[in-house]
Amino acid sequence: MISFHTNPDQYKHWKLEFEGPVARLRMDVKEDGGLVPGYELKLNSYDLGVDIELYDAVQRLRFEHPEVKTVILESAKPTAFCAGANIRMLGGSSHVHKVNFCKFTNETRNSIEDASEFSGQRYLCAVTGTAAGGGYELALAADHIMLIDDGNASVSLPEVPLLAVLPGTGGLTRLVDKRKMRRDLADVFCTIEEGIKGQRAVDWRLVDEVVVSSRFQEAVNERAQAIADTSDRPEDEPGIALEPIGIDGSETEMHYPGLDLSIDRDTRIATLTLKGPEEGAPADVATAKAQGCHFWPLELTRSLDHALLHLRTNEPETGTLIFKSEGDGDRIAAYETLLLDNRDDWFMREVMLYLKRTLKRVDYTSRSTFAFIEPGSCFSGFFAELLFAVDRSYMLEGQFEDDERPAPRIRLSEFNFGPLPMGNGLTRLQTRFLGEPESVEGAQNLVGEALDAGAAAEAGLVTFALDDIDYEDDVRFLLEERVSYSPDALTGMEANLRFAGPETMETKIFGRLSAWQNWIFQRPNAVGEQGALKCFGTGERPQYDQKRV
Amino acid sequence: MISFHTNPDQYKHWKLEFEGPVARLRMDVKEDGGLVPGYELKLNSYDLGVDIELYDAVQRLRFEHPEVKTVILESAKPTAFCAGANIRMLGGSSHVHKVNFCKFTNETRNSIEDASEFSGQRYLCAVTGTAAGGGYELALAADHIMLIDDGNASVSLPEVPLLAVLPGTGGLTRLVDKRKMRRDLADVFCTIEEGIKGQRAVDWRLVDEVVVSSRFQEAVNERAQAIADTSDRPEDEPGIALEPIGIDGSETEMHYPGLDLSIDRDTRIATLTLKGPEEGAPADVATAKAQGCHFWPLELTRSLDHALLHLRTNEPETGTLIFKSEGDGDRIAAYETLLLDNRDDWFMREVMLYLKRTLKRVDYTSRSTFAFIEPGSCFSGFFAELLFAVDRSYMLEGQFEDDERPAPRIRLSEFNFGPLPMGNGLTRLQTRFLGEPESVEGAQNLVGEALDAGAAAEAGLVTFALDDIDYEDDVRFLLEERVSYSPDALTGMEANLRFAGPETMETKIFGRLSAWQNWIFQRPNAVGEQGALKCFGTGERPQYDQKRV
Repeated sequence: MISFHTNPDQYKHWKLEFEGPVARLRMDVKEDGGLVPGYELKLNSYDLGVDIELYDAVQRLRFEHPEVKTVILESAKPTAFCAGANIRMLGGSSHVHKVNFCKFTNETRNSIEDASEFSGQRYLCAVTGTAAGGGYELALAADHIMLIDDGNASVSLPEVPLLAVLPGTGGLTRLVDKRKMRRDLADVFCTIEEGIKGQRAVDWRLVDEVVVSSRFQEAVNERAQAIADTSDRPEDEPGIALEPIGIDGSETEMHYPGLDLSIDRDTRIATLTLKGPEEGAPADVATAKAQGCHFWPLELTRSLDHALLHLRTNEPETGTLIFKSEGDGDRIAAYETLLLDNRDDWFMREVMLYLKRTLKRVDYTSRSTFAFIEPGSCFSGFFAELLFAVDRSYMLEGQFEDDERPAPRIRLSEFNFGPLPMGNGLTRLQTRFLGEPESVEGAQNLVGEALDAGAAAEAGLVTFALDDIDYEDDVRFLLEERVSYSPDALTGMEANLRFAGPETMETKIFGRLSAWQNWIFQRPNAVGEQGALKCFGTGERPQYDQKRV
Repeated sequence: MISFHTNPDQYKHWKLEFEGPVARLRMDVKEDGGLVPGYELKLNSYDLGVDIELYDAVQRLRFEHPEVKTVILESAKPTAFCAGANIRMLGGSSHVHKVNFCKFTNETRNSIEDASEFSGQRYLCAVTGTAAGGGYELALAADHIMLIDDGNASVSLPEVPLLAVLPGTGGLTRLVDKRKMRRDLADVFCTIEEGIKGQRAVDWRLVDEVVVSSRFQEAVNERAQAIADTSDRPEDEPGIALEPIGIDGSETEMHYPGLDLSIDRDTRIATLTLKGPEEGAPADVATAKAQGCHFWPLELTRSLDHALLHLRTNEPETGTLIFKSEGDGDRIAAYETLLLDNRDDWFMREVMLYLKRTLKRVDYTSRSTFAFIEPGSCFSGFFAELLFAVDRSYMLEGQFEDDERPAPRIRLSEFNFGPLPMGNGLTRLQTRFLGEPESVEGAQNLVGEALDAGAAAEAGLVTFALDDIDYEDDVRFLLEERVSYSPDALTGMEANLRFAGPETMETKIFGRLSAWQNWIFQRPNAVGEQGALKCFGTGERPQYDQKRV
């Protein structure tokens, strides 16, 4: 079982240093610190364990360090910035591990970009030594890339010539879409194993500046300060400590703060039950901050985030996720009011951004997702957003027999109309109603109203509204049917249906780029006995089937 | 060897009927008319041969029938509209054939949409019987879909539940992006094997109208007439007969009108040399029409289109395409002037649209593409557009030793700034210069000028400008290097670098959807011995690896 719990005291591979508004996140990968035996993490090459620490650091920088306005991403090794994903690790990994690894590293790089764009905490990458493959892709996630001009440091994406796979952590997309490099130059760059150095790296838009060795650290510090000067983060506020998430229960019945996760291994179904707040919202931001990581929306989001990562990584055969909810909608509304009324406060902003990122993780999770709206449920506000993230939703019309709880209601809020966009840049309701944009407006007019199944179906907010007999039959049939399908076909279908409308750099990375990489990860030319990943480092030349597909 | 030559007299699977402004394109697939033995094309199921005829029909309708304003796409079978791609054919095909088949069928459906959008020749699909899988995807390509309401006719995409593959001919993308169906309803639809009938098909946006049996033919005819009434195509002009393309030479040295194709099987490189017009442009449109299919831009485009399809289908190991050119740029310019000055004429418009579609076929061709700009070359106007379609271009600075021909020049024209957009909706120069839009303007200021290598490189129009010694070294190195890489990795890399900027329904189909389908086409759950494609029709249940990837 792979754990996502860590903290800076436990890091094997990263060092965090603080100097006023500037933090240094230094990569110093421990060679014998791999997640599993069988490979050495030389030259700052990484595996999932290294990236789990990076993700933790990115989260803590946002929440625990409101004073940090610039993060300098750098290497503690003398000659290597980062050699990218470890090849022996990739060569020895299962297909499912490779794909999951790439997805998680992509999401972490997106969260770095999210900090730069929305949190006033911008990443500056200071490249000393060679940044190869995933190493340069890490740099590409930064807002500004500086390269030392010492005749040695370079950036490169040598995957295609050396390994017969793609730079799969967003590299190809970021070259032409983020950095807007000319595609013919990108083609050249991606075949130069030794990479590009010096001024040419600037001319080709690969980095933002090159600086001679003697001036490099000074220039980096100046740039970090200049970036910090543009930030709106506070200077003298305490951070919010992200304490360990308290998880009780068994492997199949896990109780998180604000969330129960139940896994049925026979049917391969996991049920996530989100729980509304147990108490009313704090009266003001100061009280919320005093609650720290137990501030309910943050605590719940951390639980949901962790549960999703756990399911993806440790429960690959659990193909279906069911979302349920319970609680008091008025209390959710009170929390949402506090968040929205104070959206300019750094902490309120961070909580909302984290919720946004976590809901995107639902979108990008390659499992069938359903929501069941039953008596006692509480799909209000951002809980209701899950109804538009899932593949289908089923809502009971009326009550169950022998159950006195009232018929379920759902309730929309401002959270469904802006603060939580999908990767495609639209809200989930805008995406849902591409063909009938008037329905978005119609839904907006229903904000705050408690909608029963009929009203919810009428407004297009649920897939099915069914009376108790049909509900039970249909849900049973749905679950039996779904688990009988090919998991691969479902993954492909869901990846194509979930992202209508515009594509962005982010959706291109998860759609176009990742799909091609997944394909290549299946091809004998990469992973066969004579494939490049197996031959790498052995001295043998890979044998390629020359047919172009 | 698969031939792309056909004509209506030879069709096995389609019937064309004409009635004034309305044509009927009737699908009547011959069961024993498969391209190769081993399967029966029952219930209007299709293989590549059926689609080659469809592509031919779509082309002829545009050029040979200026009077046709509405094409009714229908079935000649009593109970089946079309059962989609033949499953036994898919089950027995190689990976490369499956992928190529899907690409070609996707391009043909795009060309149907291109006719509806730009040629004033709109497609109306009249669904009688069951339109399943690729059958409904064919309907989805039409501008308007009518479904008979007889208790039998239905539309469905049963691939995921029945076959463990995707509806791969654009179906998923067209559901949510073209027809803007709600994604949860699309999820439901894609798992209902028996499909959807009647009014629900309208409510769910799957079809545009349902009509009772007794009124159906009448309603179709009325709708066809109403559509025809909106067209700007002429009523009384003769068509342009698309005579067989005259191809001489051998299997490795093919001479097309206006194009030489040379294939080196040892190095796996094909060279396409485009030739400028041998004579001056006709004085007016009437003269051009009198030249018929020998009107040079049409003749050349037909040659290029055919050469690309031949290479893709019959030369899968030829991984690199080199574009060269020769001829007189002034003559090309004269043809372009004729086309642009008369762009409202139906024939001039058709020629330009066909050129646009064929250049997109270059973009979507999964081979490395290079252009070599050498003495005697003629990359002017739309020939120059190839320089921006290829992965890289190399231009000689000055002359070769012992070669008295002058140094090469390239010349831009209005054709590089609008009439030939890529699938992403931008011109190739806009895509090239996403990071420096001022360079598009700079290039526009150079229209008509003969640019030597230095000027072309300065304007960013070529990848490399090199003197003769470097040129020969670099080109040799490039070709040796390229053919040493994994063909799969190159395909994935090129598919990600070529389409920067916005994504459209079209690029999503070739990027996101096709990449996922290619992945699934490699997965044991679909193609393994226990996979769904192998088990289909045998009575055995497929065995699935349940891990979600």
